[in-house]
Amino acid sequence: MAQRPTMHDVAAAAGVSQAVVSLVLSGSSAGRASETTAQRVRDAAAELGYRTNLQAKSLKTGVTEIIGLVGDEVATSPFSGMMIKGAQDRAWQDQHTLMTVDTGGDDGLERAAIDTMLSHRVRGIIYTAMYHRELTVPAAALDTRVVCLNARDVDGRAPSVIPDEVTGGYEATRALLDAGHTRIGMINIHTSLPAATGRLEGYERALSEAGISRDPELIRPGDGTHRSGVRAIGDLLDLPSPPTAVFCGNDRTALGAYQALSARGLEVPGDISIVGFDDQDVLRDFFQPALTTVQLPFTEMGDRAAALALDAAAPAEVHLVHCPVIHRRSVGPPKGR
Amino acid sequence: MAQRPTMHDVAAAAGVSQAVVSLVLSGSSAGRASETTAQRVRDAAAELGYRTNLQAKSLKTGVTEIIGLVGDEVATSPFSGMMIKGAQDRAWQDQHTLMTVDTGGDDGLERAAIDTMLSHRVRGIIYTAMYHRELTVPAAALDTRVVCLNARDVDGRAPSVIPDEVTGGYEATRALLDAGHTRIGMINIHTSLPAATGRLEGYERALSEAGISRDPELIRPGDGTHRSGVRAIGDLLDLPSPPTAVFCGNDRTALGAYQALSARGLEVPGDISIVGFDDQDVLRDFFQPALTTVQLPFTEMGDRAAALALDAAAPAEVHLVHCPVIHRRSVGPPKGR
Repeated sequence: MAQRPTMHDVAAAAGVSQAVVSLVLSGSSAGRASETTAQRVRDAAAELGYRTNLQAKSLKTGVTEIIGLVGDEVATSPFSGMMIKGAQDRAWQDQHTLMTVDTGGDDGLERAAIDTMLSHRVRGIIYTAMYHRELTVPAAALDTRVVCLNARDVDGRAPSVIPDEVTGGYEATRALLDAGHTRIGMINIHTSLPAATGRLEGYERALSEAGISRDPELIRPGDGTHRSGVRAIGDLLDLPSPPTAVFCGNDRTALGAYQALSARGLEVPGDISIVGFDDQDVLRDFFQPALTTVQLPFTEMGDRAAALALDAAAPAEVHLVHCPVIHRRSVGPPKGR
Repeated sequence: MAQRPTMHDVAAAAGVSQAVVSLVLSGSSAGRASETTAQRVRDAAAELGYRTNLQAKSLKTGVTEIIGLVGDEVATSPFSGMMIKGAQDRAWQDQHTLMTVDTGGDDGLERAAIDTMLSHRVRGIIYTAMYHRELTVPAAALDTRVVCLNARDVDGRAPSVIPDEVTGGYEATRALLDAGHTRIGMINIHTSLPAATGRLEGYERALSEAGISRDPELIRPGDGTHRSGVRAIGDLLDLPSPPTAVFCGNDRTALGAYQALSARGLEVPGDISIVGFDDQDVLRDFFQPALTTVQLPFTEMGDRAAALALDAAAPAEVHLVHCPVIHRRSVGPPKGR
């Protein structure tokens, strides 16, 4: 085996001094060596297989490169854990450590977090939203590889990984159509959210494909709370021709619907079928019978975002991740069939 | 204003070469300069007010020092968010960025996370447990300042910040005694946990202080689940002389108790008073009437841990953080009074 190359070898191959090699490979040559020289040094180092002390140490001690994850309120959201887990597992499989900063929406902290990550030469930054939305990536973050997670970069400068809300809403509604329902209500969540517009679009597409004409009375507004589920299901049941099935815009709304139905002496799915959205872990036990719902694929989204953070060549595209229907016990045939 | 000191000035003052100054101040002098020399360089730099490029850059760009937080399953636990938030806010107030790694219990990842944090010269590491327990701090972490959060270091080498379970259990029971109850049951959680032994100890101390003799029949085992609350409250009600109040070892158990009471047509607090423990956010809405419970002070614990990580002089003591009773509507006078 050839002897390990030294800094001297790299300097000789690149035609520069050892001091310049040291500056370039430690990343502190800005303003002190031209980019041409710096590139020549990096090429020579790569060709010779020269490793800096840090890289050599990495193999010996387990020191890894870092992927940064910056989130607005990531750590305190019930969903964020799965995104972090997915990104962490992918990073670790590729021998990187994921380090998370929860900014709590503080702009100064966000800037410091990004600057600090950049100064520590993170491999990339995953910029993460607590709930699916559109956002602008901070300019500083664009100095490294940046990926938006659960968020779409409005300027299209970074790859974005978001749940496929439309297909989720479509398949939720399909599950009710497949069970034989033709009069299907929907209780939406805050209409300013991509989740709300996407899920509604999927609902309408499924009905349209099935040749069912749109009835605006069956589409009820809501705000994603338990309370709005109680109120909206009441409104639907009081219609002259009430629905036999309801697609609820999230699980919390569905739980309100369950409780209001129970208070009226109606059974799920015997009297009315219900499908939710989110498959929210902490609510799962409270549904009797278990709720058929659509899963937000947070773990897979985190995995995809970390993979994109490691792939410098990936274009700034929007990656939609499929939201599968989880079939449980809240969907049955329409009453009387 | 005096001209800014240069590395040359530090070298001259310390009587060493600029290369030695660079090695020492970049932290890479180990084995290449004696500790005496290194200290002389650091003293000269401090005296002259010399700043390394990184430090100078920090003031200009907002780059901060890092406190690392390593957790077993921190990001996916419902409680962890508040610990991270508390530590984050304290770190940020002191111009540090908290970076979190969730190891998911993977020893290799934990080691890589600690090694990577050390190689990036974090100011300290907060070693965090998802649920309150005893643990051994990994040897590598002891190379920097390490603080245990929600965990007690069994070897006593690091400061530990844990909830004061005993006082919490004492005050929960006191709330029932103060309302006039003398026959008070307890449904415990997994007895292997410090939370279980501490809360039970507090319960027994409060009864003993009130001159009420211990009745083992009133202390029921459980495992912290909703289901065990249902079962244990049933057992207590079936006693020849049932309790008029029950201290539940956690909120989940209390929710089971509520539902079992409701199924028997009994009311809280009219027929029986209930106190919980944890003040778990996601369960709060499901209690009708609102549950009087004991708060786990996670935010304050996180704050204390970060402050300790920044205080190199703090001894390796156990810091108990008070768990306050949150008075809501589930405690009333004993029936018939």
